Amino acid sequence: MTTPPPAQIGMRLDEVDTPALIVELDAFEDNLRRMAKELEGTGVRLRPHAKTHKCPVIALQQMALGAVGVCCQKVGEAEAMVYGGVSDVLVTNQIVGAGKLRRLAALARRARIGVCVDDAGNLDDVAAAAEEAGVVLDLYVEIEVGMGRCGVSPDQAAVALAKRAASKPHLRFMGLLAYQGAAQHLRSPEERAAAIAFAASRAGEAKALIEDAGVKCPIVTGAGTGTYRNETASRVYNEIEPGSYIFMDADYARNRGAGNSTFDDFRHALFILATVMSRPKPEIAVVDAGLKALSVDSGMPGIEGVEAEYLGASDEHGKLHLAASARALKLGAKLKLIPGHCDPTVNLYDWYVGVRAGRVEAIWPIAARGAIT
Amino acid sequence: MTTPPPAQIGMRLDEVDTPALIVELDAFEDNLRRMAKELEGTGVRLRPHAKTHKCPVIALQQMALGAVGVCCQKVGEAEAMVYGGVSDVLVTNQIVGAGKLRRLAALARRARIGVCVDDAGNLDDVAAAAEEAGVVLDLYVEIEVGMGRCGVSPDQAAVALAKRAASKPHLRFMGLLAYQGAAQHLRSPEERAAAIAFAASRAGEAKALIEDAGVKCPIVTGAGTGTYRNETASRVYNEIEPGSYIFMDADYARNRGAGNSTFDDFRHALFILATVMSRPKPEIAVVDAGLKALSVDSGMPGIEGVEAEYLGASDEHGKLHLAASARALKLGAKLKLIPGHCDPTVNLYDWYVGVRAGRVEAIWPIAARGAIT
Repeated sequence: MTTPPPAQIGMRLDEVDTPALIVELDAFEDNLRRMAKELEGTGVRLRPHAKTHKCPVIALQQMALGAVGVCCQKVGEAEAMVYGGVSDVLVTNQIVGAGKLRRLAALARRARIGVCVDDAGNLDDVAAAAEEAGVVLDLYVEIEVGMGRCGVSPDQAAVALAKRAASKPHLRFMGLLAYQGAAQHLRSPEERAAAIAFAASRAGEAKALIEDAGVKCPIVTGAGTGTYRNETASRVYNEIEPGSYIFMDADYARNRGAGNSTFDDFRHALFILATVMSRPKPEIAVVDAGLKALSVDSGMPGIEGVEAEYLGASDEHGKLHLAASARALKLGAKLKLIPGHCDPTVNLYDWYVGVRAGRVEAIWPIAARGAIT
Repeated sequence: MTTPPPAQIGMRLDEVDTPALIVELDAFEDNLRRMAKELEGTGVRLRPHAKTHKCPVIALQQMALGAVGVCCQKVGEAEAMVYGGVSDVLVTNQIVGAGKLRRLAALARRARIGVCVDDAGNLDDVAAAAEEAGVVLDLYVEIEVGMGRCGVSPDQAAVALAKRAASKPHLRFMGLLAYQGAAQHLRSPEERAAAIAFAASRAGEAKALIEDAGVKCPIVTGAGTGTYRNETASRVYNEIEPGSYIFMDADYARNRGAGNSTFDDFRHALFILATVMSRPKPEIAVVDAGLKALSVDSGMPGIEGVEAEYLGASDEHGKLHLAASARALKLGAKLKLIPGHCDPTVNLYDWYVGVRAGRVEAIWPIAARGAIT
């Protein structure tokens, strides 16, 4: 159920109710500009992943700086984007089931909509839904390039799906999704470069096979915040799909200083504002943000500006160990936590509280919060 | 943002959109009755924890079977309960901050409201909020009994807070919260029994000290699904607060057969209905329920009725390894997953889909979904 916003425009940050999801607007806007600038002149398109932010207000800011559109993972996310004014959405995922495909096709009356397939029967279902709705859907074939999740082999299996797509009047075959998700969180730049070199070579081979079969394959899309520079430099990918760069979570930040400036160039822009609700010992503070306020699947959150460690989360509590310098921390004090993993953390909230210079400047609805169907 | 329900009354289970949060009503009602029956004649009150279900429709069913009221962890949850018709709510947590205390006190105009403290300054703030609202709040002192989270020592520190509470005209000192959360998930019944024996002895000592100081201490409350039989038998606790027993998650189920019938007596009643969205290999299926559809903090979900293992979750995908017997599983098939941890999983959904004999019978709003302030 939609919760009331925890803040009002003009409030000081320390007046915001907690837990709250804070966007530091200066850092956030810096991150948007950095990515746009980095792609200038490369010929590689930016299609940021909206599964990170779930917010059309943010999607439109990304597009104003040159993004061609956004990616989504779910039809519900695509609905939130299109109804929020986004004109071009690629669902980088398989959509299975007649009801979902009917919803997807309906969106193509209002925006350019793409979807991925890795199965001939599903491709036929997508085509039938498009035909029934009287629309044309962009169709991408997902190929498996090392992640071991979805996707067909980048060989004749991909060619067969591309030819099948090209034969359907209500589908527009656009190319390949070649996402190497497992590479995003590898710790060393050498490992990431090797994984993406492999993915790019598989994608390049598949594209060549498809074009040899007489089907145009204009786009190879993929990449995330952890590796997008590798894909951008690959000469195979011509579209990238990073999501987390806008916020930079604690897990990505652990790669900083590891010989790859990707992670140094983006600033932490997303925080959980939390209140100290118990001070049972001089070295222990308990905050009001636990598993229902932040996701711990990629590790515990960091803590901004205070020498302390977030030891563990229970459902509604976070237990902090305070270094000597932090032991004056009082009951009621507010702390900024840096989420370990931004995407599932954002999905717990209905509102971003946008803050600049310590004042609330914006309250943006997270329109696709909970949009998992 | 509130999402549309994934089902309609009367649908067959296999027509429900996915991912969806399913309550098997026969199992759920069995669980409610079992707990009620078990407490008959013990003199121990049941105050189930609503942080598990976040749904006043469920709370009222628990009260109809004898529960005295419910527990909550957050003011927002208490609001959802009171506005949903629940007449007695104990917030088993510290509430810090003037805005939150004002909201809490306002609820006491419509229901009996209790709250916990572990700090004298916070106790004064609670009393001031009650006075300002012209209400009386039930006040419990949280004592530390082995979990190492919040709570004061069960000694003169607890006595001092009890006396302070007793001196405030707008507070009604009710007793002690002595919750041993760490004991809930201990694997052996001997470990759980030892942890609760320790907690009960500390709580009993604190109660005696408080009563020796001339302050009545009518209630000692605590316990969860993992240990409630120990507290019930302790002769110290006279109220228990289990939450998960209504649903029985995969983590609690791992204790089955370990010499303690607690976990055998409750049935799995909560499931995530998921769709197979990719079949990349004979032994691998990918479902549409990942980190945004279920919480993995206490391990991966189980799978009902299919020989398969949920290997890992990414944000929107779950990867399953299929045993030989399961390899006929088709794209589009629907599976029932058993959440590893019910509380944070429920918090991802807006609706329960209540199912009996394969048909949708009820769709209940999860009114306190996202109510973290």
